[in-house]
Amino acid sequence: MKCYTDQIDMMALLREIAPLTRTLASNDTDTALDILASILPGAKIKGFSSGSKVWSWTIPRRWELSSASIKVDGKTLVDVAWNPLHVINYSQPFKGTVSREVLLQHLRTNPERPQAVPFSFSFYEPVWGFSIPHEWLSLFTSDNYEVEINSRFEDGYLNTLSLFIPGETEKIFVVCANVCHPAQVNDSLTGVAVAVDIARRLLARKIRKYSYLVMIVPETIGSIAFLANHPEIVNQSIGGSFSEMLGTVGPLVGKRTRQTNGYWDKLLENVLSNSGLPHELANFLKSACNDEKVLDSPGVDIPTFSLTRYPYPEYHTSDDNIDLIDIDRLREGRDVLQSVIDLAERDYIPVLNQPGPVFLSGYDLYPNWRDDPSLLPLWKSFIDVMYAIDGFHSVVELAAMHHIPVSHFFYWTDAFAEKSLLTKRPFILSRMVDQRKNLA
Amino acid sequence: MKCYTDQIDMMALLREIAPLTRTLASNDTDTALDILASILPGAKIKGFSSGSKVWSWTIPRRWELSSASIKVDGKTLVDVAWNPLHVINYSQPFKGTVSREVLLQHLRTNPERPQAVPFSFSFYEPVWGFSIPHEWLSLFTSDNYEVEINSRFEDGYLNTLSLFIPGETEKIFVVCANVCHPAQVNDSLTGVAVAVDIARRLLARKIRKYSYLVMIVPETIGSIAFLANHPEIVNQSIGGSFSEMLGTVGPLVGKRTRQTNGYWDKLLENVLSNSGLPHELANFLKSACNDEKVLDSPGVDIPTFSLTRYPYPEYHTSDDNIDLIDIDRLREGRDVLQSVIDLAERDYIPVLNQPGPVFLSGYDLYPNWRDDPSLLPLWKSFIDVMYAIDGFHSVVELAAMHHIPVSHFFYWTDAFAEKSLLTKRPFILSRMVDQRKNLA
Amino acid sequence: MKCYTDQIDMMALLREIAPLTRTLASNDTDTALDILASILPGAKIKGFSSGSKVWSWTIPRRWELSSASIKVDGKTLVDVAWNPLHVINYSQPFKGTVSREVLLQHLRTNPERPQAVPFSFSFYEPVWGFSIPHEWLSLFTSDNYEVEINSRFEDGYLNTLSLFIPGETEKIFVVCANVCHPAQVNDSLTGVAVAVDIARRLLARKIRKYSYLVMIVPETIGSIAFLANHPEIVNQSIGGSFSEMLGTVGPLVGKRTRQTNGYWDKLLENVLSNSGLPHELANFLKSACNDEKVLDSPGVDIPTFSLTRYPYPEYHTSDDNIDLIDIDRLREGRDVLQSVIDLAERDYIPVLNQPGPVFLSGYDLYPNWRDDPSLLPLWKSFIDVMYAIDGFHSVVELAAMHHIPVSHFFYWTDAFAEKSLLTKRPFILSRMVDQRKNLA
Repeated sequence: MKCYTDQIDMMALLREIAPLTRTLASNDTDTALDILASILPGAKIKGFSSGSKVWSWTIPRRWELSSASIKVDGKTLVDVAWNPLHVINYSQPFKGTVSREVLLQHLRTNPERPQAVPFSFSFYEPVWGFSIPHEWLSLFTSDNYEVEINSRFEDGYLNTLSLFIPGETEKIFVVCANVCHPAQVNDSLTGVAVAVDIARRLLARKIRKYSYLVMIVPETIGSIAFLANHPEIVNQSIGGSFSEMLGTVGPLVGKRTRQTNGYWDKLLENVLSNSGLPHELANFLKSACNDEKVLDSPGVDIPTFSLTRYPYPEYHTSDDNIDLIDIDRLREGRDVLQSVIDLAERDYIPVLNQPGPVFLSGYDLYPNWRDDPSLLPLWKSFIDVMYAIDGFHSVVELAAMHHIPVSHFFYWTDAFAEKSLLTKRPFILSRMVDQRKNLA
Repeated sequence: MKCYTDQIDMMALLREIAPLTRTLASNDTDTALDILASILPGAKIKGFSSGSKVWSWTIPRRWELSSASIKVDGKTLVDVAWNPLHVINYSQPFKGTVSREVLLQHLRTNPERPQAVPFSFSFYEPVWGFSIPHEWLSLFTSDNYEVEINSRFEDGYLNTLSLFIPGETEKIFVVCANVCHPAQVNDSLTGVAVAVDIARRLLARKIRKYSYLVMIVPETIGSIAFLANHPEIVNQSIGGSFSEMLGTVGPLVGKRTRQTNGYWDKLLENVLSNSGLPHELANFLKSACNDEKVLDSPGVDIPTFSLTRYPYPEYHTSDDNIDLIDIDRLREGRDVLQSVIDLAERDYIPVLNQPGPVFLSGYDLYPNWRDDPSLLPLWKSFIDVMYAIDGFHSVVELAAMHHIPVSHFFYWTDAFAEKSLLTKRPFILSRMVDQRKNLA
Repeated sequence: MKCYTDQIDMMALLREIAPLTRTLASNDTDTALDILASILPGAKIKGFSSGSKVWSWTIPRRWELSSASIKVDGKTLVDVAWNPLHVINYSQPFKGTVSREVLLQHLRTNPERPQAVPFSFSFYEPVWGFSIPHEWLSLFTSDNYEVEINSRFEDGYLNTLSLFIPGETEKIFVVCANVCHPAQVNDSLTGVAVAVDIARRLLARKIRKYSYLVMIVPETIGSIAFLANHPEIVNQSIGGSFSEMLGTVGPLVGKRTRQTNGYWDKLLENVLSNSGLPHELANFLKSACNDEKVLDSPGVDIPTFSLTRYPYPEYHTSDDNIDLIDIDRLREGRDVLQSVIDLAERDYIPVLNQPGPVFLSGYDLYPNWRDDPSLLPLWKSFIDVMYAIDGFHSVVELAAMHHIPVSHFFYWTDAFAEKSLLTKRPFILSRMVDQRKNLA
């Protein structure tokens, strides 16, 4: 698999954005999006009004928290100033003295990671409450507690970042990542860093076959808001990726699109299988899932794969911080995603210019693997490639059908084309004809 | 699986009909059909003349037996008055004294069930003979025997019962059972009882999507005679069931149609798999088979599944009597068959009214499984159902494709429809376009 | 499987042709083709000029060798007069004294078969050299050797034998074998003997459904040259066979066409599976392969299976001689290939003349397997055959779909046809509509 050169300092970007309390809609979320827009020329911040209807969903109000604490006799037991995760995300405001029994119903902990603050949220059910390390429960021995949560809900905008990078065709590939998950890094900021790095690489190119829509949004409702307001994007989108949790040491997990065995599934599996990296493959919606649930939902139907290293033990806790991130693992994730995109860019339908097996000796195409043993696998793939060509399917499809590394396939068909033995017929992926039919 | 309320006293019906010597065509067969017609308003008795041609078959003559016995020196060894099974069904008449050697060639026994009289028949090869318990052979020590079989073959009619129950569409589902098998109960009368109970339930309904043809006939030739004379029924039939041997304790056996994985196969498998009942599935023509061999034969092509509890040790012997029948097991068989029919009645193509995953919280659709744990499996199926909907396939088909209990699927799509999030597009099963093409 | 009567004395033919130094283009090759033409009425010898372009290939020059030897001090160590394999086939001429070090680079041996002369060739890379038994290397102790290879390359023709046998349709089945492999017999002459025997059998028939093109050519370039100059043959060809290495004792190996599961694959597998002979099946291009690589290449697209007994230990050595050949094994290979052809000739689409299962008793079609136990397997296949008939697929296709011996299928459908219960609709295999599309 190709190793790409960094386009941005991904670690620096993570360090800058990580501390912000990024959520569905808030000032900190907007700040994070502004930082990202500043390094993505052409990126636009688009806002969607609270209360407006997007498909079957409603845009929530913005949430701001000025302070929150639990005190006993003037002594502070919990203060959100210590850690943004201490208050349930989107918590209702509250002020009052409550009994121990009542308070415990409003405390969330994670007994499996007793020293960490778990990430808690309640976007659509109105609750108030705190998150604390499980170990702290033993400190709550008093009968009564003074509780104060100074949160407020405001009408305004839920904001999103989008960057459209035009290509030779109007067909769009969507590169999606989530800006949210306050104070956390692997989830989802590492996916943002990879998306930005890829976006800058695509921007730097003179020629792109496909157009790209880089979309950095709060989870679920962000994608819904953007796509519901941009049906023209949906109608032109032929594929998408979602990336997150790529900075930890576990194996890469490629999650298939809803099609299960479509174009992107074949390509993702081929790239991972020939990457030499530890990896797994999972079906759509199996294992943790995010905005691919929106992009690849009925009626939206953008075949979207996902790339993560989930699970990891620090998931959804205060331990998911910058110290967890391994830049080499993050680069591997970026390389896999960029390879998938680039092989799709390169794909074509190989059409032979004459019948019969190609006369390798006659065209000086015989690879000298005796002198250069690294050519041996390529030589061994000649027969498979030669007899796989059918004049209909693209290189990516043929490589998948015949279990040949897609890079080996290009080695031979590019060489044939150079000797005028083969014509590269353009291949542009289409939206399936039966898509959008699941709507009345 | 839904438990239905009895429409008739199935045990009483079995007790009434069981003693009759029901065969292909005979007075007792006619009596049985008349009894059934009396409790099925609208049912018709149709007769087909002996010797007439039905497809490649010929209607046999009627068979009546007035008496039959084997005697030695005036002492009666066998008398058909003791048990109707003692004479081979459709035996030729015979009178004379025969040697022990000759007689033994005309005696049939079942060594594996030595105390029971086996059921023997020879409809198309002319033979004469008796059936006796294997143990009785030791009584045949004399050199000569006086044998008398007073049977006669008569021209006349082979009769069938049919009840047409019209629905909103002209597409017909055939409910078939066999009236024959003299003196036996599980085989095939239990299937008749279930068919009658279901027929009365269907009759009682104001709305039926499909039309129904309840067909109670002597085995094989009865179905052939009826369908050969009613091509309009064949041409409108989109499915069928055959039921028999449902009153014993063994697991239910669902036998697939000739299509193997067609609409009824998927529905039958889904219902059985989610019934909580011990069951097996078998392919078409594997295991004992009956009139599905006619309904689902080339050129007839009515995809017909079969429901039985075969095998059971008393099969085809005098031990297959009313004491064998367990009413609860019989009701389970009835419930499975009625469920298959009712889920097909209820089936529709779910078409979403907007893109994207449904916003459950926004429509009060979130099942409160914390308070009602029985809702947990339904809640768990939400994601599977939500992302299975494709706007093309019916609920039954989608449930099969995605291995979701069909009742869970209806739970969600019905709820979506109630909130105007989904449109129920009518689904009517068609005969396959390539059916009837196997005829010249 | 049917055993056929020999049309020629295959062993005599092998003995006559074996000693000739048959290669791509040479006098001995021409002599072999002339001998074959003399026993194949209507066969034509067609030549293709050296240097002419055939698809991406170029016709090589003819190669003649007058003498060749290695001497030390007047003593002969190797002389091609001892064995034609001693010189690398298509070796460049050479004359001179060379050091031991240089000579060893031009000697080829097979350490795994140390007493045999290996078959060496270099058709497209210009080299000179000898082949000797590995054991002889110990004789090469001198410092210098007098080497002489009197070979010459001549412009002229590369010759091929072709015999067109017209049938009722213009659709062609190609029977291909290779004339080359100097001094060897199993590889490839046994395939030639089988092809000639079959050709004479086909010629002797008054009626043939398909036309046949028997093609006996030097390996690879011979097929390419012929087919490149006969596009009309390619355009009409619906299948082909390649036969070789059939005279040894190992199991028959049926190698599938590039379609893997097409018409000929199904037929070949059905015949082999029901032949009672030890056999294996391999996919296209797996295991040793020959001219099926040409016939069944992209743009040529003649689905071609191959029948061999490869591997065998004497392969590509001087031990592959007439003593190796077992005439009974050779006949088995011939019988399999002829059976495949004859079942395709016999194939038709069975279409029933009436609905429903056939009334066997009414048409005296019940096989009396109680008297003739050999009929039992046929009787057991009745149900499978009866319910497999679909009015669309041919007997060969249905037999494959339902895993029924194709001969059993014909037993029943022929019998039904004789009783006017079934019509035989003609079945002619077509070239796939998407063939030749892999060319620009």
